[in-house]
Amino acid sequence: MKSQSPPLAPLVGIVMGSASDAPTLKAATDLLDQFAVPYEIKVCSAHRTPQRAHDFATTAAQRGLKVIIAAAGMSAHLAGVMAALTHLPVLGIPMEGKLAGGLDALLSTVNMPRGIPVATMSLGSHGAANAALFAVAILALSDPALTEKLKAFRKQQSDSIPADLPPVGK
Amino acid sequence: MKSQSPPLAPLVGIVMGSASDAPTLKAATDLLDQFAVPYEIKVCSAHRTPQRAHDFATTAAQRGLKVIIAAAGMSAHLAGVMAALTHLPVLGIPMEGKLAGGLDALLSTVNMPRGIPVATMSLGSHGAANAALFAVAILALSDPALTEKLKAFRKQQSDSIPADLPPVGK
Amino acid sequence: MKSQSPPLAPLVGIVMGSASDAPTLKAATDLLDQFAVPYEIKVCSAHRTPQRAHDFATTAAQRGLKVIIAAAGMSAHLAGVMAALTHLPVLGIPMEGKLAGGLDALLSTVNMPRGIPVATMSLGSHGAANAALFAVAILALSDPALTEKLKAFRKQQSDSIPADLPPVGK
Amino acid sequence: MKSQSPPLAPLVGIVMGSASDAPTLKAATDLLDQFAVPYEIKVCSAHRTPQRAHDFATTAAQRGLKVIIAAAGMSAHLAGVMAALTHLPVLGIPMEGKLAGGLDALLSTVNMPRGIPVATMSLGSHGAANAALFAVAILALSDPALTEKLKAFRKQQSDSIPADLPPVGK
Amino acid sequence: MKSQSPPLAPLVGIVMGSASDAPTLKAATDLLDQFAVPYEIKVCSAHRTPQRAHDFATTAAQRGLKVIIAAAGMSAHLAGVMAALTHLPVLGIPMEGKLAGGLDALLSTVNMPRGIPVATMSLGSHGAANAALFAVAILALSDPALTEKLKAFRKQQSDSIPADLPPVGK
Amino acid sequence: MKSQSPPLAPLVGIVMGSASDAPTLKAATDLLDQFAVPYEIKVCSAHRTPQRAHDFATTAAQRGLKVIIAAAGMSAHLAGVMAALTHLPVLGIPMEGKLAGGLDALLSTVNMPRGIPVATMSLGSHGAANAALFAVAILALSDPALTEKLKAFRKQQSDSIPADLPPVGK
Amino acid sequence: MKSQSPPLAPLVGIVMGSASDAPTLKAATDLLDQFAVPYEIKVCSAHRTPQRAHDFATTAAQRGLKVIIAAAGMSAHLAGVMAALTHLPVLGIPMEGKLAGGLDALLSTVNMPRGIPVATMSLGSHGAANAALFAVAILALSDPALTEKLKAFRKQQSDSIPADLPPVGK
Amino acid sequence: MKSQSPPLAPLVGIVMGSASDAPTLKAATDLLDQFAVPYEIKVCSAHRTPQRAHDFATTAAQRGLKVIIAAAGMSAHLAGVMAALTHLPVLGIPMEGKLAGGLDALLSTVNMPRGIPVATMSLGSHGAANAALFAVAILALSDPALTEKLKAFRKQQSDSIPADLPPVGK
Repeated sequence: MKSQSPPLAPLVGIVMGSASDAPTLKAATDLLDQFAVPYEIKVCSAHRTPQRAHDFATTAAQRGLKVIIAAAGMSAHLAGVMAALTHLPVLGIPMEGKLAGGLDALLSTVNMPRGIPVATMSLGSHGAANAALFAVAILALSDPALTEKLKAFRKQQSDSIPADLPPVGK
Repeated sequence: MKSQSPPLAPLVGIVMGSASDAPTLKAATDLLDQFAVPYEIKVCSAHRTPQRAHDFATTAAQRGLKVIIAAAGMSAHLAGVMAALTHLPVLGIPMEGKLAGGLDALLSTVNMPRGIPVATMSLGSHGAANAALFAVAILALSDPALTEKLKAFRKQQSDSIPADLPPVGK
Repeated sequence: MKSQSPPLAPLVGIVMGSASDAPTLKAATDLLDQFAVPYEIKVCSAHRTPQRAHDFATTAAQRGLKVIIAAAGMSAHLAGVMAALTHLPVLGIPMEGKLAGGLDALLSTVNMPRGIPVATMSLGSHGAANAALFAVAILALSDPALTEKLKAFRKQQSDSIPADLPPVGK
Repeated sequence: MKSQSPPLAPLVGIVMGSASDAPTLKAATDLLDQFAVPYEIKVCSAHRTPQRAHDFATTAAQRGLKVIIAAAGMSAHLAGVMAALTHLPVLGIPMEGKLAGGLDALLSTVNMPRGIPVATMSLGSHGAANAALFAVAILALSDPALTEKLKAFRKQQSDSIPADLPPVGK
Repeated sequence: MKSQSPPLAPLVGIVMGSASDAPTLKAATDLLDQFAVPYEIKVCSAHRTPQRAHDFATTAAQRGLKVIIAAAGMSAHLAGVMAALTHLPVLGIPMEGKLAGGLDALLSTVNMPRGIPVATMSLGSHGAANAALFAVAILALSDPALTEKLKAFRKQQSDSIPADLPPVGK
Repeated sequence: MKSQSPPLAPLVGIVMGSASDAPTLKAATDLLDQFAVPYEIKVCSAHRTPQRAHDFATTAAQRGLKVIIAAAGMSAHLAGVMAALTHLPVLGIPMEGKLAGGLDALLSTVNMPRGIPVATMSLGSHGAANAALFAVAILALSDPALTEKLKAFRKQQSDSIPADLPPVGK
Repeated sequence: MKSQSPPLAPLVGIVMGSASDAPTLKAATDLLDQFAVPYEIKVCSAHRTPQRAHDFATTAAQRGLKVIIAAAGMSAHLAGVMAALTHLPVLGIPMEGKLAGGLDALLSTVNMPRGIPVATMSLGSHGAANAALFAVAILALSDPALTEKLKAFRKQQSDSIPADLPPVGK
Repeated sequence: MKSQSPPLAPLVGIVMGSASDAPTLKAATDLLDQFAVPYEIKVCSAHRTPQRAHDFATTAAQRGLKVIIAAAGMSAHLAGVMAALTHLPVLGIPMEGKLAGGLDALLSTVNMPRGIPVATMSLGSHGAANAALFAVAILALSDPALTEKLKAFRKQQSDSIPADLPPVGK
């Protein structure tokens, strides 16, 4: 994580089930940095540090967080545990893993019972990047400048993909 | 769908791949009605009415929508198609189906490539209810009254679940 | 649940994510009744009543419980949440469901990260019965009379299965 | 892609969701080269460049294309998006991936709703080769010379497989 | 199958692994009837009537068939066996079944090795309808009148889907 | 394959879908060599060399073969094609592959319709070894000397597995 | 089971994990009756009656059995337990079930480790029929009259499948 | 396995299907060593050494074992075979493998029929560690000192996970 989260009060809270998930989450923090969205990032296991998870979630709204991003693998209960304890939108990132590439984490994150939603992203770093973009999209709803940045990002993303493959040298 | 969406400008746009998805989506519209969140609801297939899907998504922001909910089964491209054409947050509801209960729709909705997120909910009516609640959670970020309603809903939801099973009669 | 749990202090605590799981759990309570093992049974959702789940788990040991049985479907975080908050043995019963018959609940229950075990049983009522038998097996380790009952049950279970199919009438 | 597509007007349009799919698609372009079937090949993401995808598909028939081959991974909406916007035959190649080796892309490509078919090939480079051969088989229906080439290719393919394993040296 | 295939020489050959697949294939024959595309339809198991399958495939081209549609369930080898014995385009329809809703038939049909393509459609009657439409799309490439019919069908299919749900009566 | 099959008339016919399967099948031929069971081994694709497959299967019984072993990956139709064309017992070995480790080949080989059995073994080299042992078990039914060899092999296999792990050095 | 197994010494031993599997196994016994192959059939659970399973398997060869057919669902260890205790060929029939239609029983039966093969058939009654036919194919290797019966059965099976669908009445 | 099991009579019996599972099981033995719980560890295949498995299970209780841990891959019948032959609690560890990362072993271990429970842990070394911890939790029920150790372990496990990621150097 190259950049420190800026001194502004964080709007996005990122939690991960294990410090080993940090490289995957760099795809999220890089994008939040790019959009200058302040965030905090913590290691916080639903199972091994349940009190920390509880405290993070129950204080999130009053600390000024607007969106929570939770990344976990295997049984992947972290996003659900967050969502149970806050009314803030919670985005879940299932980590890739050995069982069918992460099917366990995907199903565990996404198939929440009625009443407590978790907005689930793709597996792994794709999902981490998308969680950041989705958080930006939410925050942009009440921040016209951020909306313009997001629209510009989206346009630039489109424009940066050449239609033609590079010629192959001889 | 018992209640008409109110005459207020809709904030949530709901699209479904087929009119046969409407009963499932009632779980969403009932909740939006309960929170008095105005919405519009359309049948709009990514495949059979692509122009309608295109028009819905590209005009969504300027028409005042804040969140799009897209429900589709099988290949389930609708949420992704919406997300490709708007910067608004898009929530995807995979419809249940015959292949492993809807695994096709789930994977097709959730595993979006980097750059275009879809926030995927549970399968079927659980997911429909949760999409509505998630939309409320997003809208509540800039609407303190809605935040209070959501917190009350969450508290009431908890309180309404008796801890004890009813005694079994003789 | 025909029989009341006896007035003895419960040794087994059973929690289920939804009251709709109760018929499935009857396979467990019937067996505990048969072994005269006192138990308590509560509806306690990891997501909708997280405080109740927290309180149940954190007070379980001091209330005299020896084993916790947790049944849940879909994302099925309940057993994991219990296990995170107590050092008692926690048995998980994944409920059957629509996604491949309950694969989501199964994977969510079983594939716990290192450090917080959940002892996962079969899906549905088979698993409920087996959770009760497994709880009995644990309790029997320090209760010779219960050991004898369990051995008798096992022998009777074997003996009650005729090797020959009944003759087919004409 | 060693060979340039010939100066003849392309008959086959190949689109891929990402330039990183190009090495996999070489199995397709090599075969089209071998059959001297002119083609064009573009990077065209259903999600990141939706307008390009739209334009490619809606102009395909009038530009003289007869068959479209679309390759994409993960959510893999590209072939379906193509098929929604043209009446030409669309062949889909699911890219291999991390989730069960590409099950997400396979299901997302193949399980199209009634009304908009996608002809799905095998995963990865096998599928790319087969998409080319299938396009040739379609074009051959109105091109007797191409039919002869295809029959010769098929015969040669059979004949080139020795029945006996090579002797193992000492 | 209400309508007889017309007295014109058939252009599409439909084979099914079992007569029990006929109701599912009605979705295909109804559409071919609607497009006035002549077809023949046979029961022809890859496993129980291999000689019939062999004869059907090896004589298909000389009998004037342009496209073969093969429907089978479970191990679902029929489309592959057809494709091995003809250079004509072969469309495969995996039948729904008990194993994960037909995952066996789907994988068995779609994941053909390099060299012998099968163009796989959706599972069951959706796939049957789509196979017919895909056959029409192939035949339309050299039949302008059929192209116009297909374009009209596609437009009518779009137009026939109301955007609005019917009002719910009181 | 180090050893030549002996000059005795082969009793087991081994076919593989591709020469690239040969290293996996060495686990089978090594065991047949060990039991001195004569065999022949051929590359014979159900799809790319269907005539060869047809000829192999239809002449197998008259050539004196007693058991056929067929190994194939992906769509894996080879064992089923063999079984359709001979009344001899056919053993299928699904090759490992990319889709969930070979789930496609496994389902395609095992889930044969009523009437034409394929005796399916484990995936990959485990299955190859087991196919050889199963062929030996069949042949042993009418060959008392082979029965003794098989019983000795089984006993030796048991005895060769030490119960204790080797001590770990310092 | 309409017919008694004949007074001849049984050649095929059928075991099932539960008496509830008997209706499924009727597809096997009907065929063995048709071929006049004597058999015995027992309920014999690997888990609930392990001693009975042990005794059945270890005495099978000396009692004159040539082939063992074992049917079980869920964890489905029965065929493997049989195979561990006899050198006779063991055929496994995975019973259909709730988890993805019986994927648990299928994988548990088929994916045996190197050294102890189980010849796995299709799921459910298809597999039961095929197990009987496979047993016949094995026994036919040393019984020319049975070979002729099997060839006649196979021919009759082919001939009894009409190529044409019945005309639909008016 | 660095440490010898101590000279105390073992309380936990660990069996593995193959010596190749030993490195995975080190996660279990390291933890048992840490808790000073005496154990014995044996290689004992349900299929290749069934007599050894039988003897291990049937004598386990009288030899003083309190808990059995059984690790196996692929068909993974070992835990079930143990559970069938003892009334002691049996913990199953499914080994990782090629089929979807070990889905075969997981389903084979967990989905036991009613009457004979196996308490299934996560796949691989996570499961091995958790099996040890679960065994400790069982033994702690009648060993207050061990309870204190377990509570301390759990607290230390929580405390050892820093909430903050290490700063990234420049």
